[in-house]
Amino acid sequence: MSFGSQGQDSVVVRKLSDEIMLRGTCYENLRVLCKTVGHRLSGSPQAAKAVTWGETAMKEAGADRVWLQPVRVPHWVRGKERLALKFGNEPGIGVPVLSIGNTVGTDGNLLEAEIVMVNSIEEFNKLSKDQVKDKIVYFNYRFRQDLLETFEGYGDAGKYRWSAPNSASAKGAAGVIIRSLSTGEDDYPHTGSMRYADSVKKIPAVAIGNKSADLLEKKYVAGQTKAMLTSECKMLEDVLSYNVIGEIKGSEHPEEIIVVGGHLDSWDVGEGAHDDGAGCVQSIEVIRALKASGIKPKRTVRAVLFMNEENGLKGGITYADSAKAKKEKHILAIETDAGGFSPRGIGLNMEASKKKQIQRFRDIFLPYGVYDFEGEEGGADISPMSKDGIPTSGLRPDSQRYFDYHHTNADVFEAVNHRELKLGAVALSALVYLVSEYGLK
Amino acid sequence: MSFGSQGQDSVVVRKLSDEIMLRGTCYENLRVLCKTVGHRLSGSPQAAKAVTWGETAMKEAGADRVWLQPVRVPHWVRGKERLALKFGNEPGIGVPVLSIGNTVGTDGNLLEAEIVMVNSIEEFNKLSKDQVKDKIVYFNYRFRQDLLETFEGYGDAGKYRWSAPNSASAKGAAGVIIRSLSTGEDDYPHTGSMRYADSVKKIPAVAIGNKSADLLEKKYVAGQTKAMLTSECKMLEDVLSYNVIGEIKGSEHPEEIIVVGGHLDSWDVGEGAHDDGAGCVQSIEVIRALKASGIKPKRTVRAVLFMNEENGLKGGITYADSAKAKKEKHILAIETDAGGFSPRGIGLNMEASKKKQIQRFRDIFLPYGVYDFEGEEGGADISPMSKDGIPTSGLRPDSQRYFDYHHTNADVFEAVNHRELKLGAVALSALVYLVSEYGLK
Repeated sequence: MSFGSQGQDSVVVRKLSDEIMLRGTCYENLRVLCKTVGHRLSGSPQAAKAVTWGETAMKEAGADRVWLQPVRVPHWVRGKERLALKFGNEPGIGVPVLSIGNTVGTDGNLLEAEIVMVNSIEEFNKLSKDQVKDKIVYFNYRFRQDLLETFEGYGDAGKYRWSAPNSASAKGAAGVIIRSLSTGEDDYPHTGSMRYADSVKKIPAVAIGNKSADLLEKKYVAGQTKAMLTSECKMLEDVLSYNVIGEIKGSEHPEEIIVVGGHLDSWDVGEGAHDDGAGCVQSIEVIRALKASGIKPKRTVRAVLFMNEENGLKGGITYADSAKAKKEKHILAIETDAGGFSPRGIGLNMEASKKKQIQRFRDIFLPYGVYDFEGEEGGADISPMSKDGIPTSGLRPDSQRYFDYHHTNADVFEAVNHRELKLGAVALSALVYLVSEYGLK
Repeated sequence: MSFGSQGQDSVVVRKLSDEIMLRGTCYENLRVLCKTVGHRLSGSPQAAKAVTWGETAMKEAGADRVWLQPVRVPHWVRGKERLALKFGNEPGIGVPVLSIGNTVGTDGNLLEAEIVMVNSIEEFNKLSKDQVKDKIVYFNYRFRQDLLETFEGYGDAGKYRWSAPNSASAKGAAGVIIRSLSTGEDDYPHTGSMRYADSVKKIPAVAIGNKSADLLEKKYVAGQTKAMLTSECKMLEDVLSYNVIGEIKGSEHPEEIIVVGGHLDSWDVGEGAHDDGAGCVQSIEVIRALKASGIKPKRTVRAVLFMNEENGLKGGITYADSAKAKKEKHILAIETDAGGFSPRGIGLNMEASKKKQIQRFRDIFLPYGVYDFEGEEGGADISPMSKDGIPTSGLRPDSQRYFDYHHTNADVFEAVNHRELKLGAVALSALVYLVSEYGLK
């Protein structure tokens, strides 16, 4: 590529940036999604409302064609839940609690049991079955604040939500409490997904916020600390839902498709603003900015709002299966699902020669604060496409604040900054434009 | 420098990072400053309280020596202020307003006058004296949201606060209203400094938020729009105040001094959290982290909390004058006064060879998200030192949110994220450590 063309590309990217920073609608779209739909777990009435919202927003953005792709999704419901901690003979103290997603509850009955506290899975593994049987195991593992990239900390602590309940159940525990996967210096509990192993009895598992976890850690005395849990959560029958797809047909190579997407479902708390309302409105903004700037991409650009990323990934799987069945040629799938914060990098999950091709655009991205093209992050929704050999890529925003909000009641519209959100959309538009222009060989 | 030494340096920087991210006290220090002192304009009782707070915090951080450096500062007071806009025969609409700092008020009397709206200084310059005389000029200049680095937008719009009131006065205006220097999609007015030219009559000048500015812009009809302003602000006699200084004596070259500082005063609104409580607690954290990590810097490290950056710069001038008078050898002065956001870069204002020396540390900084060493930003407090030939440097955090909060009632503790604040302190500690180790030649 000659410097001349980079100069020309910079001008086009600047045009996209001006369009988004001055006239972008993604922030207002996010407000509408958060405030008129709210949180929207797969299978819920709000998720259905979100599909309608997405379809309208995609049309308003100017997509040539908008359609819904049917997806069968799980339908988990939370119901009421209450947790009290009881230290010795003191009266029980109610603490904020969230059942972990996909778990069973107590059917609304009171589960009262002694707490066994462990600081890690290694510590837990040393306990005998007798020490665990009929107890509620409290996994007091702290999110590692020393890791500078918080997604590393999330990966590190993830097993306590995903699989620790199975380990506890295997030793006969009656339930599990975890310290939330949270960087927050607050008391918000963080929900999120888990999956029961086929081999174990399904037991209730809940998360508490860092302040309550600190209290429990401080006041815990073995044999003298109890939990009282009541919860109603349960899994219902699958429900028919949809991915929302909007497209601009490519002017020269319409058969080559670039996907940019986020997920439309959220957990059933807060407003799913950073996770992943932000990604949805940014993906729609890519379509809008291209259209409003009068740019005709040479290759086909598709914005996809995936359904059910949070507790099943059915939208991502359905999309990939359909693409394969139709023999569509996807040259790149990009995900934005790491919060509406200032962009810093673009993860590249593809063969080295393609990586290099994108890395050569680095100077074009630098004025927008995007400098890091070394990571390999893609995204959950596009991981089924990645397994099919399609190059994938993920927007990497600044990660410092994400796990203060992630899967909590604090993930609301007000936690998103308008300029940071728009700047992320600029980075995505630039990547989509450049790949639509040059392809990816 | 060999790769071996960079490896060793990386280990030390990591140690500083762990100390700050896991046991840092800067966030709690900021809470105390914001919630027990609050805003603290030069000359105010709160500014005096802040000096005491700073002295204590510096001692608790473990500085070898802590002292106060006397500074005479201006003492401007706001008093009550009210602004109503009147469109045609409609009743007046009260809007949020802040007098611009250092301005005169109306002595509590009602100033009622016709508004003349202009969108730029160029447009204003075309008006005759007759068109301006006895009117209130409204400068409706928008902060440029298309500039990706918001400090550029601030620089661009700055003249409307700094000097437009003088231009209006020179043509006989009775007062000035400006659209705030604000990126906010809200109605917070932003105060800030201005200086009257000696040649003009001092007239009141106030700022309104973006929403009120939009309203005024939309409903303005020449000759049929009025403002009703009442304000009490005025300049009182100078007051004795202090810079707060804490020091770790260098173990090998104690005569070579590195300064890291922010400013202790703030505007008289909000809590001065980002501007510049963040910089103060980060500077103190550098001292604490070095001490707590058992690192003995070879050169002297001084944390300086400058007084009166906002409306006079007397602290910075006094410090530089004193350093010169005492023939102290300052090898580098670093300022952190751009908000407690995730760090991205370090501005370098010094000769090319010294710049290169610091730029060679880039790989050590990269894991902390600090990649940009191309800017030349220093900081206002250290600009008098820069004039004396001392190399200066400024922490450059992500700038997207700063001008939503800057000089407003929204600049409160809750607007600062604990990890972002700490990460800034990590970047500063790393820079201070590296320069203390190698000097700057």
